[in-house]
Amino acid sequence: SIPSNKAIDPYVHQLKMDIEAIEKGGYDHFMLKEIYEQPKSIRDTLRGRLLPEQGLIKMGGVFEYREKIVNAERIIIIGCGTSWHAGLVAEYLFEDLARIPVEVEYASEFRYRNPVITEKDVVIAISQSGETADTLAAIKLAKEKGATIFGICNVVGSSIARETHAGAYTHAGPEIGVASTKAFTAQVAVLALMALRIAHDRGVLKQSYYHQLLTELDSIPEKIEKMLESDAQARHISELYKDAQNFLYLGRGFNFPVALEGALKLKEISYIHAEGYPAAEMKHGPIALIDENMPVVVIAPKSGQYEKIVSNIQEVKARNGKVIAVVSNGDSEIARMADHVIEIEETAEVFSPLLTTIPLQLLSYHIAVMRGCNVDQPRNLAKSVTVE
Amino acid sequence: SIPSNKAIDPYVHQLKMDIEAIEKGGYDHFMLKEIYEQPKSIRDTLRGRLLPEQGLIKMGGVFEYREKIVNAERIIIIGCGTSWHAGLVAEYLFEDLARIPVEVEYASEFRYRNPVITEKDVVIAISQSGETADTLAAIKLAKEKGATIFGICNVVGSSIARETHAGAYTHAGPEIGVASTKAFTAQVAVLALMALRIAHDRGVLKQSYYHQLLTELDSIPEKIEKMLESDAQARHISELYKDAQNFLYLGRGFNFPVALEGALKLKEISYIHAEGYPAAEMKHGPIALIDENMPVVVIAPKSGQYEKIVSNIQEVKARNGKVIAVVSNGDSEIARMADHVIEIEETAEVFSPLLTTIPLQLLSYHIAVMRGCNVDQPRNLAKSVTVE
Repeated sequence: SIPSNKAIDPYVHQLKMDIEAIEKGGYDHFMLKEIYEQPKSIRDTLRGRLLPEQGLIKMGGVFEYREKIVNAERIIIIGCGTSWHAGLVAEYLFEDLARIPVEVEYASEFRYRNPVITEKDVVIAISQSGETADTLAAIKLAKEKGATIFGICNVVGSSIARETHAGAYTHAGPEIGVASTKAFTAQVAVLALMALRIAHDRGVLKQSYYHQLLTELDSIPEKIEKMLESDAQARHISELYKDAQNFLYLGRGFNFPVALEGALKLKEISYIHAEGYPAAEMKHGPIALIDENMPVVVIAPKSGQYEKIVSNIQEVKARNGKVIAVVSNGDSEIARMADHVIEIEETAEVFSPLLTTIPLQLLSYHIAVMRGCNVDQPRNLAKSVTVE
Repeated sequence: SIPSNKAIDPYVHQLKMDIEAIEKGGYDHFMLKEIYEQPKSIRDTLRGRLLPEQGLIKMGGVFEYREKIVNAERIIIIGCGTSWHAGLVAEYLFEDLARIPVEVEYASEFRYRNPVITEKDVVIAISQSGETADTLAAIKLAKEKGATIFGICNVVGSSIARETHAGAYTHAGPEIGVASTKAFTAQVAVLALMALRIAHDRGVLKQSYYHQLLTELDSIPEKIEKMLESDAQARHISELYKDAQNFLYLGRGFNFPVALEGALKLKEISYIHAEGYPAAEMKHGPIALIDENMPVVVIAPKSGQYEKIVSNIQEVKARNGKVIAVVSNGDSEIARMADHVIEIEETAEVFSPLLTTIPLQLLSYHIAVMRGCNVDQPRNLAKSVTVE
């Protein structure tokens, strides 16, 4: 409480924001600009942290608590919406590379269910704005129980950034479009850095594989640049399916969360009911929805469970569904079965979400524009959800 | 390999199945019969195991490995489709009652992602048929890595039942309808028994609360009976919404998995695109879908985060969505806001999924029948998914 007779100097935190950086810069919408900024935003996020020539990953903020995270018996990742999807990608990254079990939680579910949390636990909170109310409440709860809290935020000095013990900012720059694009890939890039560094420190990765992955991660921005050169295919497909009432998105492994994210993007800005599923779950229910009116987006790069996803595509085609497949460059096998393919550059399976996400962002963008929707400010949605 | 000159006696496992038990017995469909059988199937599942007067839970099969499960540092639950939803309910049960961290996995994702599994891990596999290919493969993998495997199956002598170290059968009787109903509630009942018994053995539950819960669980079949007496309300609502193109299902905490299961049921048999969400996630995307054409089923019993779910209902109403709320008997607050309410009997929060599931089953059943769908054998679906 403040004594009534005392003058108080409020602390004003001045945000450093370049006005030019938040203009549309020739693009029709902020969302499109932000999609195209991804080579830059990922480069900015990796800069000074990823040093492939030296075989190093430097993350000052995170590694104040190095011992804690390297020796963690489990990692709990908390987020909402798109950030929760980045957390799901991180589950695959941390388990596959660093061999630490990960549990990903919806912030809103975690905070209300009296979770089992101890001082041994490491919690990673993900939020673009750093102000997401449920995520903030969830980390306060985990902190009270003694857990070590890391934050992955985009907005410097935000509430979540201040509440955590340590963390790493994504350097995606201000994101204006309500539907998150570059913030998501920047989150995945930071989480990939963390997973690689922890894996290296734990000694669970072969040196040669580690070095190969550093070089590969470094090449991701360039590959995205190349993919963005030709979005004619995404535009063409959008023209054909813009009036669809429903969409399914299927992926496996690292690309299962990308299926969820692709569906969320379409839902948010085009108001088409799109749903993501792990591809193998289709047979346990969603396949009943499939007929000639159902477009199914299948994320099917060569890396990953390729043969399994090919058979999922065949199942959809056998029910006359329309298949839009995101495939590796030059894949002729799926090209013969699918109605449409969008090619992505080759990369390591662990980084494929950074590439497969891009055409799905473009697809939702074009469809929403063609439907006359307000893509930057979709109905009912706020950029950051600061209420519970 | 079999020497070619040797006679082999194949082992024929005779299924004991009563022919009358698999007839429709006056009901229009197996699914409806199976919905109405739930008081009996849950009673059969609890019989001899739940002894409220003695304050005992007896589960011979499971507790051969008592030490292992009581001292588990984490439990991994594996399933597909409806069984995966039962696993999600169990996550809330085990964490809340027994204070053991639980990770629920899609069998298909678990098996292909090189999961971190050791001899310390306890894995629970859930499958009605006991033949689900992905679940079977997943437990074989976990078993190789030294984990202790428990099975929750309905079909005696099935492949999963034979592959596990120990387990408990649900005694739901043969389930013929492709969309699972009574098998789901029987799975939840067995998992509730396990959670209570483990919680008791770990000494983490107050004696009085433990005894209260045993009595409460014992009363569930009777409460379902009561609820089934009047399904006029579900039928009336079905009439109004049978032509809807989309549905959302929202729930929180113990009833978040019920939202997923309710949506899956509608999807499976009526081919309406229905999707379940944890209610607080709505603001992170799905709320964009809501307009006057979107019916939203909200599971909102008094126990649980009541005030939070009330505010979710207000958010839907503010966007002119139609709200069908599943509420506790006599709830007048939500009745004033929602377009329709279906009342359930009062119970402890931890058992509420056993009650809230029932009206959602009836809703999908009636809607599917009114749309002229083949409810017992929906298109594209098989009763048990024995391919990968």
